[in-house]
Amino acid sequence: LDYQHVQVPFEITLWIMLASLAKIGFHLYNKLPSVVPESCLLIFVGLIMGGIIYGLNDRSPPVMDSDIFFLYLLPPIVLDAGYFMPSRPFFENMGTILLYAVVGTVWNVFGIGFSLYGICQVRAFRLQDVSLLHNLLFGSLIAAVDPVAVLAVFEEIHVNEKLHILVFGESLLNDAVTVVLYKLFRSFCEMPTIKSVDVFAGVGKFFVVGLGGVLVGLSFGLTAAFTTRFTKDIRVIEPLFVFLYSYLSYLTAEMFHLSGIVAIIACAMGMKRYVEANISLKSHTTVKYFMKMWSSVSDTLIFIFLGVSTIGENHEWNWPYICFTVIFCLVWRALGVLVLTFFVNRFHVNTITSKDQFIIAYGGLRGAICFSLVFLLPDFHRKKLFIAATTVVILFTVFVQGMTIRPLVDLLAVKRKRESAPTVGEQIHIRFLDHLLAGIEDISGHWGQYYWKDKLEYFNSKYLQKLLLREYDQPKSSIVLLYEKLERKHAIELAQAGQLGHGPAHPSLLNSNRTVLTDQKLEDTQNPDVLDNMQEILARNLYRIRRTGPAYNRHTLPGDSEPGEHAKEILILRHQGL
Amino acid sequence: LDYQHVQVPFEITLWIMLASLAKIGFHLYNKLPSVVPESCLLIFVGLIMGGIIYGLNDRSPPVMDSDIFFLYLLPPIVLDAGYFMPSRPFFENMGTILLYAVVGTVWNVFGIGFSLYGICQVRAFRLQDVSLLHNLLFGSLIAAVDPVAVLAVFEEIHVNEKLHILVFGESLLNDAVTVVLYKLFRSFCEMPTIKSVDVFAGVGKFFVVGLGGVLVGLSFGLTAAFTTRFTKDIRVIEPLFVFLYSYLSYLTAEMFHLSGIVAIIACAMGMKRYVEANISLKSHTTVKYFMKMWSSVSDTLIFIFLGVSTIGENHEWNWPYICFTVIFCLVWRALGVLVLTFFVNRFHVNTITSKDQFIIAYGGLRGAICFSLVFLLPDFHRKKLFIAATTVVILFTVFVQGMTIRPLVDLLAVKRKRESAPTVGEQIHIRFLDHLLAGIEDISGHWGQYYWKDKLEYFNSKYLQKLLLREYDQPKSSIVLLYEKLERKHAIELAQAGQLGHGPAHPSLLNSNRTVLTDQKLEDTQNPDVLDNMQEILARNLYRIRRTGPAYNRHTLPGDSEPGEHAKEILILRHQGL
Repeated sequence: LDYQHVQVPFEITLWIMLASLAKIGFHLYNKLPSVVPESCLLIFVGLIMGGIIYGLNDRSPPVMDSDIFFLYLLPPIVLDAGYFMPSRPFFENMGTILLYAVVGTVWNVFGIGFSLYGICQVRAFRLQDVSLLHNLLFGSLIAAVDPVAVLAVFEEIHVNEKLHILVFGESLLNDAVTVVLYKLFRSFCEMPTIKSVDVFAGVGKFFVVGLGGVLVGLSFGLTAAFTTRFTKDIRVIEPLFVFLYSYLSYLTAEMFHLSGIVAIIACAMGMKRYVEANISLKSHTTVKYFMKMWSSVSDTLIFIFLGVSTIGENHEWNWPYICFTVIFCLVWRALGVLVLTFFVNRFHVNTITSKDQFIIAYGGLRGAICFSLVFLLPDFHRKKLFIAATTVVILFTVFVQGMTIRPLVDLLAVKRKRESAPTVGEQIHIRFLDHLLAGIEDISGHWGQYYWKDKLEYFNSKYLQKLLLREYDQPKSSIVLLYEKLERKHAIELAQAGQLGHGPAHPSLLNSNRTVLTDQKLEDTQNPDVLDNMQEILARNLYRIRRTGPAYNRHTLPGDSEPGEHAKEILILRHQGL
Repeated sequence: LDYQHVQVPFEITLWIMLASLAKIGFHLYNKLPSVVPESCLLIFVGLIMGGIIYGLNDRSPPVMDSDIFFLYLLPPIVLDAGYFMPSRPFFENMGTILLYAVVGTVWNVFGIGFSLYGICQVRAFRLQDVSLLHNLLFGSLIAAVDPVAVLAVFEEIHVNEKLHILVFGESLLNDAVTVVLYKLFRSFCEMPTIKSVDVFAGVGKFFVVGLGGVLVGLSFGLTAAFTTRFTKDIRVIEPLFVFLYSYLSYLTAEMFHLSGIVAIIACAMGMKRYVEANISLKSHTTVKYFMKMWSSVSDTLIFIFLGVSTIGENHEWNWPYICFTVIFCLVWRALGVLVLTFFVNRFHVNTITSKDQFIIAYGGLRGAICFSLVFLLPDFHRKKLFIAATTVVILFTVFVQGMTIRPLVDLLAVKRKRESAPTVGEQIHIRFLDHLLAGIEDISGHWGQYYWKDKLEYFNSKYLQKLLLREYDQPKSSIVLLYEKLERKHAIELAQAGQLGHGPAHPSLLNSNRTVLTDQKLEDTQNPDVLDNMQEILARNLYRIRRTGPAYNRHTLPGDSEPGEHAKEILILRHQGL
């Protein structure tokens, strides 16, 4: 037995396996996931695992390594989120999202930090050794809403699209603020004196971190789109580029201390459109499928590890500090949302209702990012207290808020998401209105979002598409593309229902095929009726040569080649048939 | 700049990126890959990279780590090979393959080992310090044909299926022999005296290593099939299980010193049939695509690293030893193939022609497995000589043999692979003959391959399918499945050609859509003809509600749900239309 040799990959594989099996297990019993969010169940599994490890080894189970979290577990989730982000509501509500993400987060950080410092001044609590800077540092890591936790809960409750994008967009974009404030306070903690220059440098840094992330992301995204122009002969490695470039954008941003989350989202949103047009349909299915799969596994692992890491001796318990942290997190977020929404509503026609405000405030879940940041803190004597407080806040938000948000949404009758996709008619009208509004803005000299969108669209079709798309000479409108997609789906459904061109003959076909062929001894072939029937079916339905690709070619999938020729053959046969 | 933090994933991503870009580069110039095999080009790129690293750093570039090779790069390639292995020719030629793999490899090991020992006895060559055991150890690592190299060359020359499976099957299955002999001689080298008991234990070990690998692989494969019975509600993690279980089978086999390659092949071949029936079509596309993609990248990385590792100061040059190694490798393989084929041909009706024999002998390429094994040797004073000899043998076989085998195949007019897949008629006849032969064998009391195949099929349909398939109540014959697959493909082709149900109206549809919709300002909508045309098209082609899945659900892909309902709706609409 040589366990050492294979330990690392073996244990990683086993953890992933455990996560996947846990997921299957929950879905076998349909009732459970409809009451308790999956994230809670996973944390629960983690707690049990942690308890077992703790019981067996008699020492704390290993905590989730912050490096593993930030380098390997977080990127797939953010990539998935960015790639499948509905871009229209995101850009339409960009201003509001940014307000919540930037001003709201700063508000929360300072609110929580200062009020906790106030609590520390109460003698009876024996917390006077926690300085203001440490409290602010703690505030900066506990204030940020966590995209992983938000996604896990909000994807199950189906609130309306605007509400969803407000909470989710905020949780993604606040990363830039969190990175800056966390690093700023951490460096302040290690500095002997703080000059006012440092504070201003910190404010400037925010723009560098955020906009730098966007720039890094966009440049990698456009390079990815450009690269997929040249993959026509080796379809099989197309999906790889989507993953490689987005991961590189994340790593590069992290390397320069920019916001990796912002970078990967910019990369995904920037490349999606061009990559989708360049790569083959099967590649695209693979990309989508693998992204979903990967993010699903990462997400599962994160919650399980969160549970495992909770068990152990890393905690220092102090009732007042921990209780007040939970209370301040709730209160400051609620206040922040109220105040910011007041200003937002003054400048918008579609206001955010008070129900929506409540869900935005209540949906401010904390998760694994806080947890990883608190373990990354430099060692000081109260670190264990911070770890305990963070753990409690996370568990409180995920369990209490996460489990009650669905009943609350039902109770308040919050506007739900529309179940059906917009019809083609609606889409045409929306586009028509966009052009109309762009024209009106142009005439009135007001350069609003429609004006800029129109300009961007012009720049895109004039320069970017020519550079990034392989088959530029055939630009297809998105509605034509949608039509083609629906036709393809339709065709597959027709084929599955057996209605392709030869309606009435079909039931007999299925029956005869089954009786003839599932019988292992082929007794029925002696029946002349069945044979005749079968020959007729085969003659009508199969065209001469069904080529398949060479069995061992690593560059093409079987049956990937020459659709054009086949189509031509079918057409000829069909015409003859008519 | 914080490079340390992201170094590991960043460099891995960059290497993979380099490999993928190199692949794209070769395929941009169509002429190059048709003359030179891709493996040679990649080694060449590696040599250049190695030269650059050597020139810049002034020290040897890092050699390919044997652990990385065996744990991370080799498994995807073998999994791909096993999963896409054409099972019928493989099992039909099983006896011959095993003879080549076991007896042939033992023959080569001892032939090369003893004759090199003979060379070492020549005083003029100054090699008398290389003992017989060291020569045999060297023989055991240099004798084995490499599956990666064989695959890379043979997938480009398209020889007939039997010839391909003989060479490729041998290269896969000889792993068990190589593992046993290599470890045996290595332990002998470290033992003071060798007892005859040890030699017999070695022979016994071969069966343990080979059959143990098969058992481990099959048990993981069947577990994987069983697991996919329960993934109906979370389609998105289905592909994961295929990868996880096969990787676990490889690692488990390696952990117990069994043959990992044999295990992963047994796992892939065992699960394929059941997994394919259980998982959804999209999951299956993803599995196939990702397997191809992964093996393609691994393969590329291996050849690039092979090139990089060649550069440097790891070599000790000794003309006679190196030249004789190359010669003995060629001669002993040729002799082995001749002698073994003589026996094989006496017992078969379909004999192996002398042209085929030549290609089998000539196709015995060496590759990265030898290279990794030679670096794993314990340190002794002649290790660098062995490294040099191994490198030369690999480069000789890959460059000289790999580049000349295609012209030779053309020159000898070796029977090629048939271009088209067998027709349905042929398939029915083959199956009919199988049953007939099984019956004849049963009557005559001769328990040959058809008898056992029939029994296995009976066991499969009686027990295994019930246990492992989700929808067992609807067993589908493989011909019905093929029919369905072709219908689906056909439907997609029809949809792409725009021939789905409304033939004549279509050209106008495309034109009108394009004129209307690609125009950004929608000027043409004022034209009543175009509008009427469009309305008509939309009314005819689009059915009412096109549901899409909730945008953020991590468990389903958009548009994954309820095909049944859609199909019903289409049917109703179609009937109304008729």
